[in-house]
Amino acid sequence: MDSAQFRKAAHAAIDEIINYYDTIGERRVVSEVEPGYLRKILPDGPPQEGEKWEDIQKDIEAKIMPGLTHWQHPNFMAWFPASSTYPGMLGELYSSAFTTAAFNWLCSPAVTELETVVLDWLAKLLNLPASFLSSGEGGGVVQGSASEAIVTVMVAARDKYLRESTAHLEGAEREIAIAEKRGRLVALGSEMAHSSTQKAALIAGTRFRAIPAGLEDNFGLTGKNFREIVDQCLLEGLEPFYLTASLGTTATCAVDNFGEIAEVLRDHPAIWVHVDAAYAGAALVCEEYQQLTHYMDNFDSFDMNMHKWLLTNFDASCLFVKRRRHLIDALSVTPSYLRNEFSDSGLVTDYRDWQIPLGRRFRALKIWFVMRTYGVEGLKNHIRNTVKLGELFCSMIQSRPDLFKVLTPPAFALTVLCVVPHSKSPASASVPQPKAAREAYSNSFTPDATSQALIDSNLLTKQVYEAVNSRAEIFVTGVVVKGTYAIRVVSANPKAEEKYIRRAFEILVEVAEEVRNQVGGKGMEPVRET
Amino acid sequence: MDSAQFRKAAHAAIDEIINYYDTIGERRVVSEVEPGYLRKILPDGPPQEGEKWEDIQKDIEAKIMPGLTHWQHPNFMAWFPASSTYPGMLGELYSSAFTTAAFNWLCSPAVTELETVVLDWLAKLLNLPASFLSSGEGGGVVQGSASEAIVTVMVAARDKYLRESTAHLEGAEREIAIAEKRGRLVALGSEMAHSSTQKAALIAGTRFRAIPAGLEDNFGLTGKNFREIVDQCLLEGLEPFYLTASLGTTATCAVDNFGEIAEVLRDHPAIWVHVDAAYAGAALVCEEYQQLTHYMDNFDSFDMNMHKWLLTNFDASCLFVKRRRHLIDALSVTPSYLRNEFSDSGLVTDYRDWQIPLGRRFRALKIWFVMRTYGVEGLKNHIRNTVKLGELFCSMIQSRPDLFKVLTPPAFALTVLCVVPHSKSPASASVPQPKAAREAYSNSFTPDATSQALIDSNLLTKQVYEAVNSRAEIFVTGVVVKGTYAIRVVSANPKAEEKYIRRAFEILVEVAEEVRNQVGGKGMEPVRET
Repeated sequence: MDSAQFRKAAHAAIDEIINYYDTIGERRVVSEVEPGYLRKILPDGPPQEGEKWEDIQKDIEAKIMPGLTHWQHPNFMAWFPASSTYPGMLGELYSSAFTTAAFNWLCSPAVTELETVVLDWLAKLLNLPASFLSSGEGGGVVQGSASEAIVTVMVAARDKYLRESTAHLEGAEREIAIAEKRGRLVALGSEMAHSSTQKAALIAGTRFRAIPAGLEDNFGLTGKNFREIVDQCLLEGLEPFYLTASLGTTATCAVDNFGEIAEVLRDHPAIWVHVDAAYAGAALVCEEYQQLTHYMDNFDSFDMNMHKWLLTNFDASCLFVKRRRHLIDALSVTPSYLRNEFSDSGLVTDYRDWQIPLGRRFRALKIWFVMRTYGVEGLKNHIRNTVKLGELFCSMIQSRPDLFKVLTPPAFALTVLCVVPHSKSPASASVPQPKAAREAYSNSFTPDATSQALIDSNLLTKQVYEAVNSRAEIFVTGVVVKGTYAIRVVSANPKAEEKYIRRAFEILVEVAEEVRNQVGGKGMEPVRET
Repeated sequence: MDSAQFRKAAHAAIDEIINYYDTIGERRVVSEVEPGYLRKILPDGPPQEGEKWEDIQKDIEAKIMPGLTHWQHPNFMAWFPASSTYPGMLGELYSSAFTTAAFNWLCSPAVTELETVVLDWLAKLLNLPASFLSSGEGGGVVQGSASEAIVTVMVAARDKYLRESTAHLEGAEREIAIAEKRGRLVALGSEMAHSSTQKAALIAGTRFRAIPAGLEDNFGLTGKNFREIVDQCLLEGLEPFYLTASLGTTATCAVDNFGEIAEVLRDHPAIWVHVDAAYAGAALVCEEYQQLTHYMDNFDSFDMNMHKWLLTNFDASCLFVKRRRHLIDALSVTPSYLRNEFSDSGLVTDYRDWQIPLGRRFRALKIWFVMRTYGVEGLKNHIRNTVKLGELFCSMIQSRPDLFKVLTPPAFALTVLCVVPHSKSPASASVPQPKAAREAYSNSFTPDATSQALIDSNLLTKQVYEAVNSRAEIFVTGVVVKGTYAIRVVSANPKAEEKYIRRAFEILVEVAEEVRNQVGGKGMEPVRET
């Protein structure tokens, strides 16, 4: 493909992409292909001779589109969004044009330096303490995902703990002590923390223990529960070295009690605390959320994904650490072919030592383009608009207490709801609610709900969830939160608008009424929690 | 940025990128900015109000370009290439437009299915055994980098080893045995293996031991040396569980002796062997290299980067495993919000369980576009042309035995050379050579070279390397191979051509003569090997 052919091909691609974005709402939000659909329609191998772009491009609409679930569809309300925006795409386009392995500064100084600059910008926007800026002992690095960031900091935490807790020993004695401690290390996270903490512990080769986080605390981790598990681990001879604290859990966007966690750390200063703000961290660009960073200086690391709610294309997981040397101590190995006078001088950052992979993409470009195209006000407006849509949606749900219950108060543009069985049934309005939700949204809450009532609600909610998704006008996620089946509806999509949220409510009402009338709460299979 | 603005911006971006590629040879190949250059010319934070694309785009040439080292420059002959091609860029562009978190099949079935299909295509192109195809118990997955792939398989290998070696135990007894074994695990790799094996061991929390690989074996790992280290580890009470075998080492593109390694595995079947073919694996698309896969069925995993030598934009590290369940056993944790009927049915692949991060990009698109645009013949031609350029370059180097010595035979478009001191000096032609190189390229080899002669050659070669790079017409890498300082010249760039290789040779001759006349082998500082 020469330059002229590329120009033509790229213009055709741009046209197709624009058309896709302009008409995305007309497509079925979730793909309905059967597993294995693509192999059946593709040849067994690549062509011997090259093909023309026209022929390749045709296959995008014909063969790829049917297999896409459209995350940018305004009716995509599942999981958390994966933002895509035009300036983000331009960033990816230039990034691919400037391809470099970028494992050290000299590979392309701009890749490293722009990343340092825009992450300092972001740290300030998010109201992180100055200790997380590159001008101090900390700094930011773009990772591929929040889960990768958790592995990275957990490895750093593990090695820091092993190093510091054996600092009084030497030689073989120290080596033996470290080997013994490895088998006793335990990483912690609330039972509501994202599963990537558990996976990170698998990768780092340590134990993992989940800390209870109850309905009564709005599913946020309390200091009391944290302390109890730490004490219990110590009693069992285990050594807790790491905690994931969540700013916005996956299931309900719960926020852990950072003040209480910081209090516990006074007695257990060796525990590394990582704040996983993967989705909800984006809200920190708005002043009204910034009190959430009040205790951040007590913690070791913080991560948020601009690629979820902050209008930047996947991947842009922004990890900040308070002491960059902890990452470098754990992850640096520098052979001769990676040495150069700049790295040796210590004047430059070699981000390969801040991450698991060696090579890396020029991801800072899209962050820079997005920040400049939207401006700070544009970013804030997006957060505020979508939060408002979430509150609107929740208020609509609240307007039908005969049909729905809100499980937790609406948070960060997420609403978590359950369907309530017919009012004649004893299960009516029996979905348990946390304290905060009870106060703000109380309507005929029944604290002594029987477990049968919960089972009824669970079965009904699951059926409604499945019926809504199989109608495929909107796409939402089902979740089991401590035994309660619920539906998550997220209004944080870049294309989110009031009309779509209102329509989502209508659909939920229609489907809930339909399902409830059909089944009457009978003959449903039990919900499996895993 | 609305659709019309995006069309205009994207067209301007495409024009800029085409102009960049058409004129890249006129730029200075390696950036000459000083550390910290970018912060000085950027504001302290993002603008409050959004900016226009025209203003943002201006800053690319003004502020980013000076900080780029141009990996697509025809005179970029350093490290290994990071390919960028027009169809690769189109793949990245569509991938960003179709942004999805893609952590399971339902997120966008096409993302998973295209990946499975094109990796099966690639496995067949590379002549991998059928056991590595998805139709059997194996399969391929696109990772971000070869180093990430090594961490992934090492974790799988570690857990498989711990699980299988304690299968006869139960409960607490097994748990204790596993904890004890963790402290005894040792990952192996030849001393020439890429540093990412050592880093992976840091991450996986195991020991690492390097196996000697000598000049006499062309720096390839032999069965004898592998067996000796395994025996030695066992004697010390350590448990070797993993080996990286290299198909093309970083320093000299050495290939380990796979046949001998397979032989040792008969006595040590618990050791997982991963073949790291990050760069040179691309050559397997050509029949004349395919005998290298003869023993592959004895090994557990194989990884090559299409983004290095196979015309695909970074990142496209293609990892193949013989038993996919080993990855899934080690890396799967599935909470309720990631469950769906398709994943539960076992009919679909959820690639999140084959990798460290949860989320992933649609990387298969660019692989598909590249394979179809070039065709199999196009891919082979690129490999053969660039290999031929490497051989031409080496023959030119060989034509000046008064100035240069080839350290190892040219391999995979890489030439590794040393500068020899003046002929009057006793160091003349004293650079040690491996047996194969001696036979193929012998010219006044001096087996009894004094160590002073080696020091002279090292100092001279390092000075020539530095002088060549500071002239900045070509960009090459210096390397220390077991005490010998050498210069690596790679001719595998997508834009590589004979005229550039000839010019590179001229530059090396000019600089070598100049440096040698200036210093006369005196007053040079010793070379540090790290």
